[in-house]
Formats: sequence, C-alpha cells, structure tokens
Amino acid sequence: MIGIFDSGLGGLTVVRTMMKQLPEYDIVYFGDTARTPYGSKSRETVIGYSFENTEFLIKMGAKLIIIACNTASSVATHKLSEKYNLPIFEVITPAIENALSATRNHKIGVIGTRATINSNIYEQKIMEKKPEAHVYSNACPLLVPLVEEGWLSKPETRMIVKKYLHPLKGKQIDTLILGCTHYPLLKDIIQHKIGKQVKIIDSSISIASQIKSYIQNSPEIDLSLSKKGKSKFYVSDITDQFKLTAQKILKQKIHLEHVIQ
Amino acid sequence: MIGIFDSGLGGLTVVRTMMKQLPEYDIVYFGDTARTPYGSKSRETVIGYSFENTEFLIKMGAKLIIIACNTASSVATHKLSEKYNLPIFEVITPAIENALSATRNHKIGVIGTRATINSNIYEQKIMEKKPEAHVYSNACPLLVPLVEEGWLSKPETRMIVKKYLHPLKGKQIDTLILGCTHYPLLKDIIQHKIGKQVKIIDSSISIASQIKSYIQNSPEIDLSLSKKGKSKFYVSDITDQFKLTAQKILKQKIHLEHVIQ
Repeated sequence: MIGIFDSGLGGLTVVRTMMKQLPEYDIVYFGDTARTPYGSKSRETVIGYSFENTEFLIKMGAKLIIIACNTASSVATHKLSEKYNLPIFEVITPAIENALSATRNHKIGVIGTRATINSNIYEQKIMEKKPEAHVYSNACPLLVPLVEEGWLSKPETRMIVKKYLHPLKGKQIDTLILGCTHYPLLKDIIQHKIGKQVKIIDSSISIASQIKSYIQNSPEIDLSLSKKGKSKFYVSDITDQFKLTAQKILKQKIHLEHVIQ
Repeated sequence: MIGIFDSGLGGLTVVRTMMKQLPEYDIVYFGDTARTPYGSKSRETVIGYSFENTEFLIKMGAKLIIIACNTASSVATHKLSEKYNLPIFEVITPAIENALSATRNHKIGVIGTRATINSNIYEQKIMEKKPEAHVYSNACPLLVPLVEEGWLSKPETRMIVKKYLHPLKGKQIDTLILGCTHYPLLKDIIQHKIGKQVKIIDSSISIASQIKSYIQNSPEIDLSLSKKGKSKFYVSDITDQFKLTAQKILKQKIHLEHVIQ
C-alpha cells in the first residue's frame, strides 16, 4: 500500500488528489490528530513523532511513504530516509519544481505554518536550483485551526487570509506556493486575495504527479503495491468534529479508525 | 510546592493570579505544549495525559494539584482524585460558585472549548446547585489559537469574539463564565462585546481564592508547602513563540524548562 501520514487531517488533501490521479492504488493514511498541530512544535518533537508514524504505516503494510505534512517534510525527511529502506517522499520538493516551472519573473511567494516558514526550507531549496530567484514568505499560523474548524469561507477567514497575504502583495510575485497541506481547502479565497495573475501551486497536486511518474518508472515498487482501489484511515484521536472535517475534505463518508500512538 | 498543570500556556493565567494572591507559596507548573490543545481531543486521551502530568508534578515535589485546564478538569478530576492521595483541585467548581453568587436573574452564560462545552459539565453542575437556573453555552474553538498567537486585540479577534458571543446576546444573561484558562487574556474584548451589564467570571481568580481559603483551613497541608516565593515552569515542548506567549501572560521574563513527556 501507499502510506501517507500527516499531523492531522490536512494531509487528506493529498489522499484526495491521489485518489483522482491513481484511483486503483490502495492507500493507508495515518493522521496524528492526538498531537496535532505539528506547526508550532519543535524540530526534535516533530522528528520523534515522524518516526513513530512511519513505523505504524510500515506495520500496516506501506511499501512507500508520503510525508503529507510540510512541517514534518522540512525536518524529518532526511532522518526517515536514513533509517528506513523504502522510498520516502515529501511534499516540498515537487511543489518547488512546479513553482520553478510556472514562474516567469522568478519572484515566488510561500505561505505555511510558523515551523515551516522559520525552517527556511523553501527559500533554501529554491535558491539551490535557481540562485537568481527571489522568495518572499509569510507564516500563517491561524489557517490550520480555521480549516480544522471547517470555517472555509467565513468573512473572518477571508480577513485573516487577506492580512496574511498583505506582506506578499506589492512584491510582484507571479507564483505562490501553498506550503501546508491544509491550505488547498482555502485555495479560492487565497487566489481571490492574492490576485488572479498569481499562479497558485497546490502541493497535493504536485506530489501526486510525482508519485505517479515515480511508480510508472519503478516496476519493482509498482508490483509491491496493492491495487484494489481501497483506502484505510487511521487517526491517533477521534471526535465528531474530526469525522466531519475528514468528510468535508474527501467529499465522501469514510471510516476513521482510532489507534493509540 | 503547589503543582499546576495545563494543556499549554493558558494555565499561566492561574499562576499569575496565584502569585498575586499567595505570593510566598512556591509553584511548579507543567504546560503540555507538545500535545496542546486538549480542547479538541477525546475524553480518554485527555485522561491519559492528565495522569502523566500529575505524576510529573508529584515527582517534582507537588503536595497539592491544580488542574488549570477546563477540558482536563471536566473529564479527569474524578479519576485523579481516586488514584492520588493528595488534594486535587479543578477550575470549574469555584467559577460556578462565583457565578451563582453573582447572578441575580439566574441566567448564566458559559464559553469554552468544544470539549468543555460538549461535556455539558457547567450546565450539570449549575443545575445541581440551582435547578431554577438557565444556562446558555457556546463553544469558541478558535480563541485558544488566537491567544497562543498573541493576537490579543486584533480586529479579527474582536470579530471572532463577537461572532461567538452572538448566540448568547438576547438571552438576558447577567453573568458569563470564562470556561477556559486562556480567555482571561481576552477579558476586555469579551466584556465589551457581551455588554458591561454582564458580570464576567474569571476562573483563574475563583480558583486562587478557593486555594487561599483551603490552605488557611488546612494547617497540615500548609506546613507541607514550601514558601520561598519561587516558581518553576516546565513544558513538554519549547519554541520561541511559547517563550513570548508565556512572558506576555505573566508580564515577566521566566525560564521555561523543557522535559520529555
């Protein structure tokens, strides 16, 4: 199976895109809802949690891991790749590649949680590949709680998105990376507030395309993946609100299974 | 020492009031910042965390425990009292007692996290003591993230507070309980939006008064508590933002010590 983990439910935007692009592949998802959010936690804590989540997915039959959380992607990918002998994918690199293909003026905006933005990983990776680029970033810590609340189009959400995007306006960016897997759920508001001339890069689409082409070129991995078009969803804590939010993201009823992490 | 725990930093409002009311007593605080927030987590998960937090405080020398978190108070007090042979206090009962003394028309409002409000504990406990009372409550899940962000007086915060209080307006409440230890930091906005005729009950003040009178009446416990006017602060995760928020709440520089929970 394809294993996907996230700090909570935001990573379901990746599952949603994977289901569209690779409908026959089985997915096992783990959302660490008991310890969400990761975005305000320290590096060491997030690395520790990422090890535990990966162990769980492997135990559940994962042969390939996607870290569908930008915070964990930015701090834990390298550590996980060193330890485990299976392909580990993160959501940052494919988004950067798409952004670099899309930009014309090389002025790229990035929004994410405080941990992701403070890690400077987007800027570093963009500069490695395109030293003449200019990267403008801003942390938007309240967007995850707003999404988890299901406030996807409330006036308060619009105001907060506008406030967070304000520092990026006037920088002439032509491309904006959504550096958090929750943000695709606010894509319309973000597009409206940043302006329609700016291309939005949705990392859930970028990672799904990358996985698709990786699988096509890796017959051995492809053979190890089950293909019954079935998905399983595990969470470390369960409440009615989590069920509602999961349904809202996937636009279908799913069963969330509670496991103690 | 007096041991105080909370899901994060909101419980520091209790420490702040304790320092004013009982300045000579030593306090050991534990903020579970790695697993914050508790308000959206399930009952079982919050009980498990509360056991761990209490064990830690006892190990650090606590002879009396205050659960400075409404979510944990509502689900874990009974379990902790059963297990540990030392006085366990929670923040709900003293706030209810103050509200019942303050109200004239017995129409009482309560705001808190979704877990606290869904537990119905305020309504139950108020009705036990005053069956003719009317309780109107509303969950305000975004206020904790807004406080943790330090957005204490931003227009967006005012709008969100107004929206959350809207269902309580027109119910003629004359008393409003702040059922979350983060909310005293938004007291002025809440007072402004609910109207100055409504008496606000700040549970951090209620619990500090209760502890003061308990200690005065329990010489044995009083003797077991150290009184050097010193406080120690432990957290399960540490970031620069946590340090800033802690300072903002306590209005002084403090040292937060990181412990693995």
